[in-house]
Amino acid sequence: MASSFGAAQVLVASNRGPVSYEVREDGSLHAKRGGGGLVSGLSAIGPDAGALWVCSALSDGDREAVRRGVGEDGVRMLDVPADVHADAYNGIANSVLWFVHHMLYQTPLEPVFDAEFRRQWASYEAYNRAFAEALAEEAAEGAVAIVQDYHLTLVPGMLRELRPDLRIGHFSHTPWAPLDYFRLLPDDIAEQVLRGMLGADRLGFLTRRWADAFTACCDAVVGGLGGTEIGVHGLGADGDFLRKRSHEADVEERMAELREQIGEGRRTIVRVDRTELSKNIVRGLLAYRELLAGRPEWRERVVHVAFAYPSRQDLAVYREYTAEVERVANAVNEEFGTPGWTPVVLNLKDDFARSLAAYRLADVALVNPVRDGMNLVAKEVPVVSDAGCALVLSREAGAYEELGEDAVVVNPYDVVGTADALHAALGLPAGDRAERSKRLAAAGTALPPARWFLEQLEALRG
Amino acid sequence: MASSFGAAQVLVASNRGPVSYEVREDGSLHAKRGGGGLVSGLSAIGPDAGALWVCSALSDGDREAVRRGVGEDGVRMLDVPADVHADAYNGIANSVLWFVHHMLYQTPLEPVFDAEFRRQWASYEAYNRAFAEALAEEAAEGAVAIVQDYHLTLVPGMLRELRPDLRIGHFSHTPWAPLDYFRLLPDDIAEQVLRGMLGADRLGFLTRRWADAFTACCDAVVGGLGGTEIGVHGLGADGDFLRKRSHEADVEERMAELREQIGEGRRTIVRVDRTELSKNIVRGLLAYRELLAGRPEWRERVVHVAFAYPSRQDLAVYREYTAEVERVANAVNEEFGTPGWTPVVLNLKDDFARSLAAYRLADVALVNPVRDGMNLVAKEVPVVSDAGCALVLSREAGAYEELGEDAVVVNPYDVVGTADALHAALGLPAGDRAERSKRLAAAGTALPPARWFLEQLEALRG
Repeated sequence: MASSFGAAQVLVASNRGPVSYEVREDGSLHAKRGGGGLVSGLSAIGPDAGALWVCSALSDGDREAVRRGVGEDGVRMLDVPADVHADAYNGIANSVLWFVHHMLYQTPLEPVFDAEFRRQWASYEAYNRAFAEALAEEAAEGAVAIVQDYHLTLVPGMLRELRPDLRIGHFSHTPWAPLDYFRLLPDDIAEQVLRGMLGADRLGFLTRRWADAFTACCDAVVGGLGGTEIGVHGLGADGDFLRKRSHEADVEERMAELREQIGEGRRTIVRVDRTELSKNIVRGLLAYRELLAGRPEWRERVVHVAFAYPSRQDLAVYREYTAEVERVANAVNEEFGTPGWTPVVLNLKDDFARSLAAYRLADVALVNPVRDGMNLVAKEVPVVSDAGCALVLSREAGAYEELGEDAVVVNPYDVVGTADALHAALGLPAGDRAERSKRLAAAGTALPPARWFLEQLEALRG
Repeated sequence: MASSFGAAQVLVASNRGPVSYEVREDGSLHAKRGGGGLVSGLSAIGPDAGALWVCSALSDGDREAVRRGVGEDGVRMLDVPADVHADAYNGIANSVLWFVHHMLYQTPLEPVFDAEFRRQWASYEAYNRAFAEALAEEAAEGAVAIVQDYHLTLVPGMLRELRPDLRIGHFSHTPWAPLDYFRLLPDDIAEQVLRGMLGADRLGFLTRRWADAFTACCDAVVGGLGGTEIGVHGLGADGDFLRKRSHEADVEERMAELREQIGEGRRTIVRVDRTELSKNIVRGLLAYRELLAGRPEWRERVVHVAFAYPSRQDLAVYREYTAEVERVANAVNEEFGTPGWTPVVLNLKDDFARSLAAYRLADVALVNPVRDGMNLVAKEVPVVSDAGCALVLSREAGAYEELGEDAVVVNPYDVVGTADALHAALGLPAGDRAERSKRLAAAGTALPPARWFLEQLEALRG
């Protein structure tokens, strides 16, 4: 296979691939291409470079495509059985590892690591093994393999055993838990996760803080990092793409609609998130409520535009969280709304063009997660906002390391403090706000996806 | 005032004092004396030594006693208004600081530090100030004041301002939160707590681990410990008292009753706790269920004696937890019980003599908290058990530092691992078990309450 990076072939492994399939009514398969950092990254090393992306079939359409031998050059989709994938992805990755790294459990009662957990863990191992075996099979001598995220923590170690000749990297897109929280995991599982990752030559994290937390876990649980290197690569927003995309016609249309909903001359506080437990949408609404209650001068003069897109709705706790978001938003509208003013414009339906429209109209961007690997919204809004926006930013978001200086920083649990921050952000003088927004945009686009990916490849090769 | 310790008068401050009052039907006040480490400690420095204990009125009877001027020598009870006390004690100490140090929150939705929290915090400050002012008023020149626990974190700093001449100590009976969790607290509050405690000359913790966690928080939040010393004093059980008390007639009676409930020739797994969210009673029951399901040879041959005494039943989350304990215990009895065998003997009514009876009958003691400052039950059962007991001990209990070597150690979240540990503990050869139990008893009584208290006094004076 042709090589793509220096002398070495490049392989990428991630749960979700760059393409998905749908079975149409006439039985034909329809392919849909996605975007994101890895797509930009791989395209940057050249389309004919022989790179390979190993990913999992996620839907019935995907599995059907694998069975029919339909596919794309440069993509190998693994036909992981639906039940194994559900255990590995929902059961372990999203309900255990995600919860540990984001510290989301109600610890008196959760997690319960019982026999059912052990059964699901076996599926997680099988799912990781499927990736390791596919990579081992596909990789040319001395190839570079970069494995993505908490779904695939065991792959580096498994792959190392099968193919000692490869250069193996792993990148974590999440935070890393502090030691006391990481050790919620059963001891053998905690060790397996760390040893799995340490099978890599090099591990990447989004910030120094998460890298240090990982190192502390290794020191305490497995006696250090061994020979594995640690690198920090703060994935940034794709400024060129965002600036272009946000001026297309569909975005302009959505802007007109949004302006109508907001009303003439009002300030906007914008947030756009998946309805994810860690995003802290409910406390954001409570802080906005506190702003309206404690500083009545803002009533009628501001609108909170909150887009909260469906996420992991197959997990009950996410459905309940979504319901709570709606309940609190409605309560604020009932308490403060007037015939001409709806204080909260909540929308739960995913619409990228409308998100960009909201970015452009944002006076204040609210990004207040309880814990977040990076948070790209914090980096995107300043790039796109027409008049420059103020950023209210949680110090628990990875983006804080790069953006903290020009943001209004909050403790995400502190609702009164967040209300004060919203007030301060709304009141920033226009000049100051525009200057900060410019610096935020520059910092937020300092390492766009393609460069972020190339940096890792270079470091792995060096 | 006569001095009691070297040249210095000794003062102690704690929320709960050594005596409480009840208004009888005829209007008279009835005094009830309590026990515990501080009572033993103060009695050790001599009854006529002029020591003073400052505590809060907790009940209507207590407040009535203060108003009537009824009291005891050596005790000053503060008439903190009931609503201020409720805010400080339930609202802040038990619902915020306790939850932070034990990592008990369901973080996506709790805590919410809103205007109501700020109001309660003002009560916590007032309650702490009442203690500081009383101590300042009562203390002789150069006296030693030892302040107890998370209820009174602000007292050392306040007292230092009022009385720079005093030697001030503070002792924490809880764990200390890891930095990432401690910083859930609003930033100004986190700083106030640390600076309040650092007003002391010396801070005591139950284990090195909690002391190190505190130091890490100070390093990150207030730039270090300043001149404050840190000491570790691992409070132990009062062996002499326990051995004597556990052979009194009422305990023998309870043993006969318990033997009846357990049945002839069966092993016993004993746990005794307050029904406290951190004690992990539910997962203990689930682990016992796992033992019976996975190793049927134990059915009919073992009984889990679980005493779970009411605690903080004025907080809804504690009432729900108690209900969950009952639900799971009943479910295990329904799944596995037979006409002649009740697998779980659950009792929710506090009875000290019956607890000691269970200790004496224990083959295995189960102490599996998710996080615990020390856990004295782990130290008490080996002292009292007639035949020597095996100890299944959480590595998240402070007692683990002293008892880990002779216990069967568990990760408290790992239900399968805990079931395995129960199996191993039940199967320990009698000789090995007796030897371990002897060493556990020796380690657990190495620093009895009186010595624990004197150690701190000596260190403060030195």
